[in-house]
Amino acid sequence: MKDLSVLTLVIGNKRYSTWSLRPWILLKEFGVPFEEIVIPLYREDSKSALLTHSPAGKVPILHDGEASVWDSLAIIEYVADLYPDLVIWPRKRETRAHARALACEMHSGFAALRSECSMNFGRAPRPISLTETARADAARIDAAWRDALARYGGPFLSGQFSAADAMFAPVVQRFDAYMIPVSEESQRYMDAIKSLASWKEWSLSAKSEKWRLPQYERD
Amino acid sequence: MKDLSVLTLVIGNKRYSTWSLRPWILLKEFGVPFEEIVIPLYREDSKSALLTHSPAGKVPILHDGEASVWDSLAIIEYVADLYPDLVIWPRKRETRAHARALACEMHSGFAALRSECSMNFGRAPRPISLTETARADAARIDAAWRDALARYGGPFLSGQFSAADAMFAPVVQRFDAYMIPVSEESQRYMDAIKSLASWKEWSLSAKSEKWRLPQYERD
Ligand SMILES: N[C@@H](CCC(=O)N[C@@H](CS)C(=O)NCC(=O)O)C(=O)O
Ligand SMILES: N[C@@H](CCC(=O)N[C@@H](CS)C(=O)NCC(=O)O)C(=O)O
Repeated sequence: MKDLSVLTLVIGNKRYSTWSLRPWILLKEFGVPFEEIVIPLYREDSKSALLTHSPAGKVPILHDGEASVWDSLAIIEYVADLYPDLVIWPRKRETRAHARALACEMHSGFAALRSECSMNFGRAPRPISLTETARADAARIDAAWRDALARYGGPFLSGQFSAADAMFAPVVQRFDAYMIPVSEESQRYMDAIKSLASWKEWSLSAKSEKWRLPQYERD
Repeated sequence: MKDLSVLTLVIGNKRYSTWSLRPWILLKEFGVPFEEIVIPLYREDSKSALLTHSPAGKVPILHDGEASVWDSLAIIEYVADLYPDLVIWPRKRETRAHARALACEMHSGFAALRSECSMNFGRAPRPISLTETARADAARIDAAWRDALARYGGPFLSGQFSAADAMFAPVVQRFDAYMIPVSEESQRYMDAIKSLASWKEWSLSAKSEKWRLPQYERD
């Protein structure tokens, strides 16, 4: 178990920073105390600010005393290591393997969807036209969600809220903001995510940010 | 611990399939027995063959009885779960966090380098000209390697061979095949990887493959 030194999570703009949302929502949902530092991204001074926190120069970064962890999924694994009593990954080996495969597929994939539909908590929901590749990404996510929800009974991807859900939280916002049609089961899953207290807290805070990045404000 | 049912790893062409090499080299280095199925990629019948193994339609996939794990990093985590006595991730929490951050940075990053320098075990080493982004990717990897080698004393990224090295193995091939200049420390690290029995086995087997994909055979 963890002693009482407090974790510090360095994140980007809440309006846009998908990678930041993942560990943030996980820490909040599991009640892990942490301090937060927000660095507004893609400004002249952003890179130098990021580089004081990590040589990879990207958010999120978790500091824990001397330890510094500079990737969203690695942060989630680190927190799972620190707090073995929290069910951050499912307890059953097969369910855990399934959750990790989902989380990893998200972590390294869906590049087209990610670049065509930037996460944007301030966007009034309206559709855009997607390339075929991005549509295939969305269809694969919908299918993967339905399969997991059927397999473990919902309301989350492994039954209870787990790291897999944290990894997909940004997609929930994208599907909503760009009105991407999904199955009823996936719609219910998105509603479950959007009902989380942590989601509401991030969302409110994101909407109150004044920073705007034109590259993420599309039609 | 694992009972005696044998793992099956589904992989792509050894000449090109970077994601496949990662879990394969890990399993071999740690002496974990498995059967191997090779599916030649990007042919007319490839996708349907892949889809019989996993709905994500990509290699690698690990089958273990009923369980099926469809992402390179998730497979590595699964094997670490199955064999807790093998030091697949370092035992010390901070070193493990560092190894996971490296593995994850590789898993989700370096898109420019990956697309400009396809892994190709049959390429006679010769340089190409890279975009600035790909050069920055290579420089970041070189710096991350040097830092880890200095921190833990080498010859591998966490001292002993671990999952982090498995994740970077394809980059070793790329740096070699495209003659990308690196620091002396990183060069020694690459030599250590290329001295592994598992590396030599994959390499020989890759070179004996007859399949060619023009998109991966660049000047
Ligand atoms: N693999 C990383 C990706 C992190 C990433 O790309 N972060 C973006 C923002 S969401 C960033 O920091 N960009 C700033 C920059 O590259 O200057 C993770 O999962 O944490
Ligand atoms: N996130 C996956 C990526 C796997 C991946 O992209 N595999 C490629 C080959 S290296 C593939 O199967 N491509 C075949 C296809 O998309 O049809 C992992 O880490 O395993």
